[in-house]
Amino acid sequence: MTGPRYPALIQSLPATVPFVGPETQERALGKPFRARLGANENVFGPSPKAIEAMRNADAELWKYGDPTSFDLRGALAAHLSVAPENVVIGEGIDGLLGYLVRLLVEPGDAVVTSNGAYPTFNYHVSGFGGVLHKVKYAGDHESPAALFAKAAEVDAKIVYLANPDNPMGTWWQGKDIVSAMDTLPDGTLLVVDEAYIEFAPEGTAVDLPVDDPRLIRFRTFSKAYGMAGARVGYGIGAAPLIQAFDKIRNHFGMNRSAQIGALAALNDADWLNHVRAEVAQAKARIAEIARENGLTPLESATNFVAIDCGQDGTFAKMVLAELGKEGVFVRMPFVAPQDRCIRISAGTNDELAILTQALPRALRRARNP
Amino acid sequence: MTGPRYPALIQSLPATVPFVGPETQERALGKPFRARLGANENVFGPSPKAIEAMRNADAELWKYGDPTSFDLRGALAAHLSVAPENVVIGEGIDGLLGYLVRLLVEPGDAVVTSNGAYPTFNYHVSGFGGVLHKVKYAGDHESPAALFAKAAEVDAKIVYLANPDNPMGTWWQGKDIVSAMDTLPDGTLLVVDEAYIEFAPEGTAVDLPVDDPRLIRFRTFSKAYGMAGARVGYGIGAAPLIQAFDKIRNHFGMNRSAQIGALAALNDADWLNHVRAEVAQAKARIAEIARENGLTPLESATNFVAIDCGQDGTFAKMVLAELGKEGVFVRMPFVAPQDRCIRISAGTNDELAILTQALPRALRRARNP
Repeated sequence: MTGPRYPALIQSLPATVPFVGPETQERALGKPFRARLGANENVFGPSPKAIEAMRNADAELWKYGDPTSFDLRGALAAHLSVAPENVVIGEGIDGLLGYLVRLLVEPGDAVVTSNGAYPTFNYHVSGFGGVLHKVKYAGDHESPAALFAKAAEVDAKIVYLANPDNPMGTWWQGKDIVSAMDTLPDGTLLVVDEAYIEFAPEGTAVDLPVDDPRLIRFRTFSKAYGMAGARVGYGIGAAPLIQAFDKIRNHFGMNRSAQIGALAALNDADWLNHVRAEVAQAKARIAEIARENGLTPLESATNFVAIDCGQDGTFAKMVLAELGKEGVFVRMPFVAPQDRCIRISAGTNDELAILTQALPRALRRARNP
Repeated sequence: MTGPRYPALIQSLPATVPFVGPETQERALGKPFRARLGANENVFGPSPKAIEAMRNADAELWKYGDPTSFDLRGALAAHLSVAPENVVIGEGIDGLLGYLVRLLVEPGDAVVTSNGAYPTFNYHVSGFGGVLHKVKYAGDHESPAALFAKAAEVDAKIVYLANPDNPMGTWWQGKDIVSAMDTLPDGTLLVVDEAYIEFAPEGTAVDLPVDDPRLIRFRTFSKAYGMAGARVGYGIGAAPLIQAFDKIRNHFGMNRSAQIGALAALNDADWLNHVRAEVAQAKARIAEIARENGLTPLESATNFVAIDCGQDGTFAKMVLAELGKEGVFVRMPFVAPQDRCIRISAGTNDELAILTQALPRALRRARNP
């Protein structure tokens, strides 16, 4: 009896996972984390109105969700001043990135990203046999100029840019990206991942007509809207590209309560403002804690702060491990020289109090291993 | 400015959708359905314990779900007397079928199913460039013998069999499928879709060692557990195949509350039994209504009843349309001769009272258009 026959591409893929969840780490540690500051989740939570809407919807969860996400799509379109045909809803930005890569990338096709940018995008590109070309950050910023030059050089199908950037928290003004797009080659689609856009200063979003065929933007309810566990992301772009998702997506992939909750969250601007204020305060406190310990916080347009630990990646990794032993879950960039930093998500006052105590101890042990 | 460059396969795909949701039909009709009996949803709903668990979890929806679904996977493994390594969790069976096809099918590869069986499977096969070969039903049963013979003839990578069958509700004993598997060719993976297995008589499940490399089975919380809107399905199979899903799946694709709710639902055997009893009663009533109208209900091991309308597909389609005008949402098989039937899901007493009134009127108008 033979087993199933896998194509060569599938055989070549590793079984590695872009991110190990904190629950897996907690099971390895044998105890829960005291401060969950590693996944850029939004501990200030969903709008109470979204929670109420989901709780009401849970009793009707025997119904499939609307596969067209008609209500949510319409509300997002109104919110963005575009047509519903310019919006696609999916299972988080992760799910939508997978669909996008599948729509465009055949084995051997070139794709461009920054070395050290979002690993899940790379996971999808490799998973469909695309060839990744990675350019360096410029300082701690992703470099649109370098990305687009590489795209021209390798004839890329897709170029990926997160703005604001994860894991560094840096950002470009939208108009700077638009200017750089003069060098974006014909036939290369620019993906701007705007997962953190609601935390960023006015003017950060790329402000181009929505029917510009060179661009798709992705946003999410996972960050500022505090609904990471709901899995609701959306893409904004030209209608033909948005419509193409319907050829391949899992039409019944969206949780019904999550769709209803996202709609309620979108309509609660007060809560969003409340979250922004809480996050700003928490980020200021994280920066202060970093400075109290002689470390350098980077400016951030997201809900996290990258902290320069002042040495190399080996040292930062030790700080990270020692924080883990203190019950503090954080993550860090994967690639030098950004990996001199650790990345700390905005937390509650209680969590930041734990961090205040844990960080000096972690640094001491990392310096004297 | 050129747009994105789509591969030929993507260009060739239609933008059609396997199923149009009832919400879309309601918007077209301008009013809500009075009886929602078309999507084989379980109107008796999730376990109250599952609802409570999800409501509690909703406030913590700012956390990503565990990407390994550790707790749910462990509980399912224990429930099935297999190891967690034999269970993969995904965004409904629809999502898992997509992953499975991607794992095995390259453009041009042969795949076998029954003509008139689950369209979403076909959607995925076409979406990855597979070549579908369809065999006829034997009477109103899918035919394992015909499926496996065709698989041998075309050297299929995958053969799909739903047991119990949708849309007809017919079923095989598991041992009959196992016997037929003697003719399953080497290197062909048999997918048994057991979405409705909890409604079926003892002995319907295929009882083979879980490490048999010829087989994967899919089950769901959408039907007997009443959680269609949650999107929680699972696959059961040999560890190497199950592990392969980790190479390509959307690791953070699962809604956190849904995972927690599914676990609570799995642990509430009493509610499952209550649902089975309600469904059995509703099916008996649907059969009775059919007979009262001179129609022939088919025996069913699911939560729906296929009703032979006694003429051809054109007539059944008219009955369906007339029921729609009465505010009764039902669906029907796509292919002759099964399309002589309409398919009615188990509903509440109130919904079946509406059906009792609507069906004679719909039949009268269909007979005298």
